[in-house]
Amino acid sequence: MQHFLSKFCLGSRVCVFACLMAISASALAGEKLQASDAVNVFIGTGGDGHTFPGATRPFGMVQLSPDTQVRHFKQSYPWAAGYRYEDDTILGFSHTHFSGTGHSDLGDVLLMPYTGENKLEPGYPERAFSGYRSRFSHQEEHAEPGYYAVKLLDHNVDVELTASERVGLHRYHYAANEAAKVILDLRSSIYDYKGKNIWSSLRVRSAQLLTGGRETRGWANGRQLFFAIEFSQPMRHRALLNREDAIEYRGFAGPGNRADEIMKIEGKALLANLEFGVLADQTLLVKVAISPVSEEAAIANLAEMPGWDFQTQRAQAKAAWEQALGVIELDASPVMRTQFYTALYHSMQGPSLFMDRDGGYRGPDHQVHHAEGFRFHSTFSLWDTYRALHPLLHLVQGADRNRDFVMSLLASQQASPEGILPVWQFHGLETWCMIGYHAVPVIADAYMKNLPGLDAETALNAMIKSAEYGPYGGLQHYMRLGYVPSDLEPEAASKTVEYAYDDWTIARMAEKMGRRDIAEKYYARAQNFRHVFDVQTGFVRARKADGEFRTPFDPTVSNFGSDYTEGSAWQYSWYMPHDNAALIAMLGGDAAAIAKIDQVFDAKIDEKVYAHMEDISGLIGHYAHGNEPSHHVAYLYNYFGAPWKTQERLQQVMETQYKAAPDGLSGNDDLGQMSAWFVFTSLGFYPVAPGSNEYVFGRPFVDKAMLRLPNGKQLIVRAEHLSAKNRYIGAVRLNGKVHTQNFILHEQIMAGGELVFSMQAQPNLSWGKAHVDRPYSQTAYHSLNQ
Amino acid sequence: MQHFLSKFCLGSRVCVFACLMAISASALAGEKLQASDAVNVFIGTGGDGHTFPGATRPFGMVQLSPDTQVRHFKQSYPWAAGYRYEDDTILGFSHTHFSGTGHSDLGDVLLMPYTGENKLEPGYPERAFSGYRSRFSHQEEHAEPGYYAVKLLDHNVDVELTASERVGLHRYHYAANEAAKVILDLRSSIYDYKGKNIWSSLRVRSAQLLTGGRETRGWANGRQLFFAIEFSQPMRHRALLNREDAIEYRGFAGPGNRADEIMKIEGKALLANLEFGVLADQTLLVKVAISPVSEEAAIANLAEMPGWDFQTQRAQAKAAWEQALGVIELDASPVMRTQFYTALYHSMQGPSLFMDRDGGYRGPDHQVHHAEGFRFHSTFSLWDTYRALHPLLHLVQGADRNRDFVMSLLASQQASPEGILPVWQFHGLETWCMIGYHAVPVIADAYMKNLPGLDAETALNAMIKSAEYGPYGGLQHYMRLGYVPSDLEPEAASKTVEYAYDDWTIARMAEKMGRRDIAEKYYARAQNFRHVFDVQTGFVRARKADGEFRTPFDPTVSNFGSDYTEGSAWQYSWYMPHDNAALIAMLGGDAAAIAKIDQVFDAKIDEKVYAHMEDISGLIGHYAHGNEPSHHVAYLYNYFGAPWKTQERLQQVMETQYKAAPDGLSGNDDLGQMSAWFVFTSLGFYPVAPGSNEYVFGRPFVDKAMLRLPNGKQLIVRAEHLSAKNRYIGAVRLNGKVHTQNFILHEQIMAGGELVFSMQAQPNLSWGKAHVDRPYSQTAYHSLNQ
Repeated sequence: MQHFLSKFCLGSRVCVFACLMAISASALAGEKLQASDAVNVFIGTGGDGHTFPGATRPFGMVQLSPDTQVRHFKQSYPWAAGYRYEDDTILGFSHTHFSGTGHSDLGDVLLMPYTGENKLEPGYPERAFSGYRSRFSHQEEHAEPGYYAVKLLDHNVDVELTASERVGLHRYHYAANEAAKVILDLRSSIYDYKGKNIWSSLRVRSAQLLTGGRETRGWANGRQLFFAIEFSQPMRHRALLNREDAIEYRGFAGPGNRADEIMKIEGKALLANLEFGVLADQTLLVKVAISPVSEEAAIANLAEMPGWDFQTQRAQAKAAWEQALGVIELDASPVMRTQFYTALYHSMQGPSLFMDRDGGYRGPDHQVHHAEGFRFHSTFSLWDTYRALHPLLHLVQGADRNRDFVMSLLASQQASPEGILPVWQFHGLETWCMIGYHAVPVIADAYMKNLPGLDAETALNAMIKSAEYGPYGGLQHYMRLGYVPSDLEPEAASKTVEYAYDDWTIARMAEKMGRRDIAEKYYARAQNFRHVFDVQTGFVRARKADGEFRTPFDPTVSNFGSDYTEGSAWQYSWYMPHDNAALIAMLGGDAAAIAKIDQVFDAKIDEKVYAHMEDISGLIGHYAHGNEPSHHVAYLYNYFGAPWKTQERLQQVMETQYKAAPDGLSGNDDLGQMSAWFVFTSLGFYPVAPGSNEYVFGRPFVDKAMLRLPNGKQLIVRAEHLSAKNRYIGAVRLNGKVHTQNFILHEQIMAGGELVFSMQAQPNLSWGKAHVDRPYSQTAYHSLNQ
Repeated sequence: MQHFLSKFCLGSRVCVFACLMAISASALAGEKLQASDAVNVFIGTGGDGHTFPGATRPFGMVQLSPDTQVRHFKQSYPWAAGYRYEDDTILGFSHTHFSGTGHSDLGDVLLMPYTGENKLEPGYPERAFSGYRSRFSHQEEHAEPGYYAVKLLDHNVDVELTASERVGLHRYHYAANEAAKVILDLRSSIYDYKGKNIWSSLRVRSAQLLTGGRETRGWANGRQLFFAIEFSQPMRHRALLNREDAIEYRGFAGPGNRADEIMKIEGKALLANLEFGVLADQTLLVKVAISPVSEEAAIANLAEMPGWDFQTQRAQAKAAWEQALGVIELDASPVMRTQFYTALYHSMQGPSLFMDRDGGYRGPDHQVHHAEGFRFHSTFSLWDTYRALHPLLHLVQGADRNRDFVMSLLASQQASPEGILPVWQFHGLETWCMIGYHAVPVIADAYMKNLPGLDAETALNAMIKSAEYGPYGGLQHYMRLGYVPSDLEPEAASKTVEYAYDDWTIARMAEKMGRRDIAEKYYARAQNFRHVFDVQTGFVRARKADGEFRTPFDPTVSNFGSDYTEGSAWQYSWYMPHDNAALIAMLGGDAAAIAKIDQVFDAKIDEKVYAHMEDISGLIGHYAHGNEPSHHVAYLYNYFGAPWKTQERLQQVMETQYKAAPDGLSGNDDLGQMSAWFVFTSLGFYPVAPGSNEYVFGRPFVDKAMLRLPNGKQLIVRAEHLSAKNRYIGAVRLNGKVHTQNFILHEQIMAGGELVFSMQAQPNLSWGKAHVDRPYSQTAYHSLNQ
């Protein structure tokens, strides 16, 4: 392999060697299959997945990837990750990306190697050579975990990328006798509208070192990011330019009067055009370190990647992924392996590191803080990820990683201007995106799973502050009325049911801590979903402050201004995951509940019904797998005495919503929530109510999986007789003993051993039918004497 | 007095009480005259003085003053201090101002009280009631050190202002039954061009506390300032608004959906409209603390001003000024007292404090630092102030204050991205304005005067770094060629002579430290003025890199692109203050030198010659007292054996360039340099070459002055027989002994005692004629064996 790789690096035929590598990896009989080789990083880069194919380490701060977006293109949604598989030109390579969001930002520190006459503008995709943008072809593109390579056809430059946690490494191979040039375009961002750049600066420290910083508005306001760029060869000429076109006061750029003498420049539209001359070995390497704190910290972060050995860095990145993905060892078909390990790969993109080597980071107050005893991470897409991603990461990454996340949430609360936990945070900053206080279930779930080193009192106080912060999301009304009133607050129905669930996790944690007063209060709040459930229609509906349901009512309405968050009543009426017994009661019993969920899946709906809302995708009837409110719904049949129907529906979802192709995700991956759902579902169980320590069974989709648990134990999951036909659970055995419950406890998993599903072609209508052993919902129920 | 004051505060007749006060102050026979009562803070607010009339403490961080400027008015020069006496409308009251600059910035945190319907735009001066801007009249305006009062005629609000070091205190008295309103306009700046606001934020902390911050471009780039605003009464309603008109992505402002619920807002054009209802006593007090570091630090700075007692704060501000100005006790006419104490007052506006109570400040690297063992000051207009202001402040404020300045310069060097001392710094940031490395003579002068607690090695290293930083101002060429070449660097002639002087101060300091190698090197560099002195024409002229003088040559040319900095060869050919012996030699002897200087003063020049250059003002022939290159010129006759001609010229300058009126300064006060010249000249001596420890005699303009020296001693300066007619020095006695030298040493002043000038109507042609006792110039001369 090494031989091929080094040849590739000197040659330009990306495709040929990439193909050879792919063949060699799978064809060498007897060699153990590597998890990282199974990953297809292009899954989700087409369609609505919004993933990126670039080079990164697990949870890395640098996520270095090509951007194909068109600058100043107003339709930003499809380019949320900067890259779309459908595109055929590359704008450049930038160092920060979201994996799977429905909103856009980042794309920091864009570099683009090029040749020929100076090109200071990106140009247009439809006009070749109109700027530094270049055409490319998937035939000459290759990517794998920690590595990305492409040929820039217009410039005849081979680009390779790899990364450590805080440093991106570029290797550019220019054609013979071509003078090597690089553009650094600080104007560029993902969703690159005019006015996004608040300020930026650029400074020459030596012929091989540039530093700078940028402050942007956008999804988060006043976001600062600093960088240090080190070149393997000295710059021969350079021009630091401010391309602002109508400024009244340009100010002084600092010492130096001629372009090559300018050492520093500040402004809103900075560009550096760097020329390296004809290079002896045609090769230029570039290290880019980023820092939340300062240029000096970025320089210090460069030390993370000593030397200029691209191959070693690439191998280290790959090894880091192999270690991370190897927590689950899989027996499955090649296609299933690809889907599964790609999902696992995508579940390890965020929350991502946002901390310098010395522990410095920038918090929600825009100030510099130092992490003591943990590693600060950010990019918390909490409305999505509290559901399955955080439970998955706790399970396969262990308490260490999850402790970083939890400590980062608590540190953010302490530095929050509002004194509350993050809602939707990236790069340390609050975006106020989506609803709920879903950092609360993330922390409660970790506590219930005995996260070590957590100061429960501090955590509980932070959670309560978030749950009782009146100005946020109608909480002042929710606390007074027991529901969010639709005439005083938008998306009132969704907020009420999600708050009630979050409240239940506070109660769970307080109960375990022995704080009975708090537990009682929050178990009571956890029942607030009842205030917005209309038993007449069987739907969750919003009430006005006067107590009346809002009228008229149409359960399919989901637009902005409705009472639902990216959803309709059809999608939101199932969200009391901590008390499905109440749901059954409100719907009038199991049969009615089953019939109603069947209606969700089986509805024949006009495709226009949800077409206005980008995030509602992956439709099966009203079920929208492409968005999170539906994610637990297929599992609910388990609670209604019909596990076999869950097993059926999961087959339907897995077959229609995922595939091993660029458009293989039916909706935004949402920082790994879509992927985490896939991983859990493949393994046969899912956390419907994080905080319960229960995983409800679905059915396995893999023959065998071995989970390396963070406590050193192993859980083997086996699906006996699994086939396309044998898709129902006949029986379950845990460590050889018959397991009649349709769920498994976290403690049971952590004890290790073997979980065997015996699959069969006909549903087993009696297995797991009993409404038993729901300790958490019973606690909630009984503590309220209802 | 107290009685009147408190009545004034409740009433609205500003003028009446102001007049009463003025009368009472001077009319109460037997009461000791207060220095602060003599100050007319309006001197310099008209014409080209560019001073401001607002409330501040000596060297205070808050300089709270009315702004009369028109927003977005491109002609910014006349409004460099925000206020012009000629104007008749007030835009609002902002908290930071420059005193006497020729360039514009600051004007932070603009507040304006108003009444009636909501007004969110300032409106136009020529259209009453077109916005929150209001008409005012000098008849109902009063100001004195630490206090400013005005009636806003359009809103019928009486405004009073006072300040502590870091906090501005406003008192607004509204008309009966009028609802009190206040606008906070974060868009507003001095030189308020579009795009100056990079970013700003505003946050409601309680019904009585607002905090925020702002980042601006302008004279300095990326300048951050934070603030905390506390109201004596709760806000009843508030609207936080972003008035940006064409943003594509407004983002999320945070929790809250209705105007009164919004707790925080960020953007580029923020405005807060605050309503307090009808107040019981019609009075609203507002404290505004500023901070270079953070909103939290601004809140902490508020503690500097406890309680809501306006009178106490005003009295404390006045007492602080009385103490500061009382360092010189004057016997002189009322008009002379006003001019003198106003000049002394204006010499204490900068460098100003730029540090939080806990020592935090923001340095030239934009990062937060902590001052240890000194108080960080900024606003170093060094090209101006190294000449007379810093020597004056060392003399009358003492080593303590000057040590703060010197330590601030050194701390700035350590945090400087270029590793050099400040050139023209404010709010910690470099502007690269003007030429030279004139922090060097400031530090050297302080060292030569035995500034305690200075680490000379550290200081000397910092000075040398500045003098040898190649990319700055052609220094790489200067070091190679011995002059700055005009074909490679603008303003080459001025730079060469000023660098040579700065170099000499390094040599002086190194010599005193016993660093003979450095002294030799820099004494040699100090002679570089010779390389640009053309003995054929008798002018300082620029050479090209090939050694040829640049042609054609016109000694009156002073425009941008000339070889001079805000001047012509007529003005710049006198600048080798450390080696006037060489000047004489180059000009061909005393008589020729005298004749040439006479030409400077007596030239009849077309007024258009210098009309294109705003800063060249205060013309007497080619002599431009309104700008600094001329400031030492009248004193040069002393070196040519004709002290009586210096005495004559000074009379001419004092009579034509200063008066006790708003347009009483003939040029920008330049952070006190114009005023420091006045103070020294009034006392009879002037530091032609700081670093020499010599003050050259002019002639006194006051009957008697008692200097309270910082070492506890006193120097009495007496002018016997001084009258309009008796304007020549007949003889000088120092402590009773005849003093034939035409200069006095710093050590002699510091020893205290009595310096008596015996004045007479006819010039004494022989007194002080000898070219003797120039130890410093001889040292320079002899060390080079020339």
